[in-house]
Amino acid sequence: MTRYKVTLSYDGTAYHGWQSQKNHVTLQDTIQQAFLLFQPQPVKIMASGRTDQHVHALNQVFHFDSDIAMSEEKWKLALNAYLPDDIYIKKVEKAADTFHARYDAVKKSYLYLLNMGEYDPFRRDHIYQYNRHLDIEKMQEAALIFLGEHDFTSFCSNRIADTPNQCRTIYNISITVDQDIVRFFFEGNGFMRYMVRMLVGTLIEVGKNKLTLEQVQGMLAAADKTVCHFKAKPEGLYLVSVSYYEN
Amino acid sequence: MTRYKVTLSYDGTAYHGWQSQKNHVTLQDTIQQAFLLFQPQPVKIMASGRTDQHVHALNQVFHFDSDIAMSEEKWKLALNAYLPDDIYIKKVEKAADTFHARYDAVKKSYLYLLNMGEYDPFRRDHIYQYNRHLDIEKMQEAALIFLGEHDFTSFCSNRIADTPNQCRTIYNISITVDQDIVRFFFEGNGFMRYMVRMLVGTLIEVGKNKLTLEQVQGMLAAADKTVCHFKAKPEGLYLVSVSYYEN
Repeated sequence: MTRYKVTLSYDGTAYHGWQSQKNHVTLQDTIQQAFLLFQPQPVKIMASGRTDQHVHALNQVFHFDSDIAMSEEKWKLALNAYLPDDIYIKKVEKAADTFHARYDAVKKSYLYLLNMGEYDPFRRDHIYQYNRHLDIEKMQEAALIFLGEHDFTSFCSNRIADTPNQCRTIYNISITVDQDIVRFFFEGNGFMRYMVRMLVGTLIEVGKNKLTLEQVQGMLAAADKTVCHFKAKPEGLYLVSVSYYEN
Repeated sequence: MTRYKVTLSYDGTAYHGWQSQKNHVTLQDTIQQAFLLFQPQPVKIMASGRTDQHVHALNQVFHFDSDIAMSEEKWKLALNAYLPDDIYIKKVEKAADTFHARYDAVKKSYLYLLNMGEYDPFRRDHIYQYNRHLDIEKMQEAALIFLGEHDFTSFCSNRIADTPNQCRTIYNISITVDQDIVRFFFEGNGFMRYMVRMLVGTLIEVGKNKLTLEQVQGMLAAADKTVCHFKAKPEGLYLVSVSYYEN
């Protein structure tokens, strides 16, 4: 039995998220089905974390185990041959037997894309078509509030109620603009469900001058699931990278 | 009755081309149906030319006539409100009663995008995923063969048999590369069906070192519909602009 680490990108538009579900097409199920086309026994794949419906990944990571004697390059070719064209396996690597795509992840980064310019029908599923101006400098100031270690209870899904610890560390946030496309980049030790989308949603309110920096500070300090009603649309969000100790 | 000139962009992925068809969803039918949602009488729209299945447009032009008293800006908003999100009306302008989107067009330009780098699942419907290297300099040399006025019979659909004249003038061809994306740009007084895709398909063969410059010259000089078997995939093709005398 060999354990493999797989790095892949996917366009999440057609999927009800990563996680296996009954009655919905998900990334996990689609990829697991691809394995069945060239080996009889079912394979269970384990990702670094779930992505939600319509969310994309540039470098998601999962691991799986197999007895099939096949080179890393052949695995890549075989999987890509059977997968639909919105999923692309970038790399397959042999990993330590103990490697775990989720528990061993030490750093993740996300990108959120927003278009302040004219509506772009070609990027409608890949960049949030906001199509109005935002105050970038104000958003950049507000982003500093989130930097460092904080209890992000105010900025995560209600369903996380049972998670023991909502403290996370954000190492880096940048907001840049190129030709009307705003790029929100986040790097941290972990992000809870909806966390990036709620942070971006809150920053957008700041950029619209609907929220002050003091209000954002108050929301963060409250550590209260009921204070944030802003969640940016999923189609602008990309899981960019997952880092492991060995990297 | 007022005549309007409309400039629009569309992602052609979901459509069986521009031209109205039975049993298939086309751009013309979809747009004509949008008019029916706010006025009772059917409108017939006339484009600068057809685009084929899966081909895109950045600035297609059509004209229509209407008795409805509505400002140009209101027309734009109303049409965009009713159209699906892969079609975007960029501009509606009052035009002379005699303006004709097709017959008055004096210049058109097209762009063809090809990815020589790694497969990109996000651009699979918008950039031809060739994913191998091409000899750019050789393609640039070959492109010069097509510049100027020529009989392009060898590079158009077999179905054009009845067209009296296959002479067209290409004013400008450029082939540039940016981060593994090849941009083939064509500007000319008119392009026949499949002409851009056949020219690009032929240039790709040159870039693969499967065709020499002499062979390409021979194909053009032959003016024979049977000599060119190369037609690049539709998803890389964009109608970029249509120019009229008044512009």
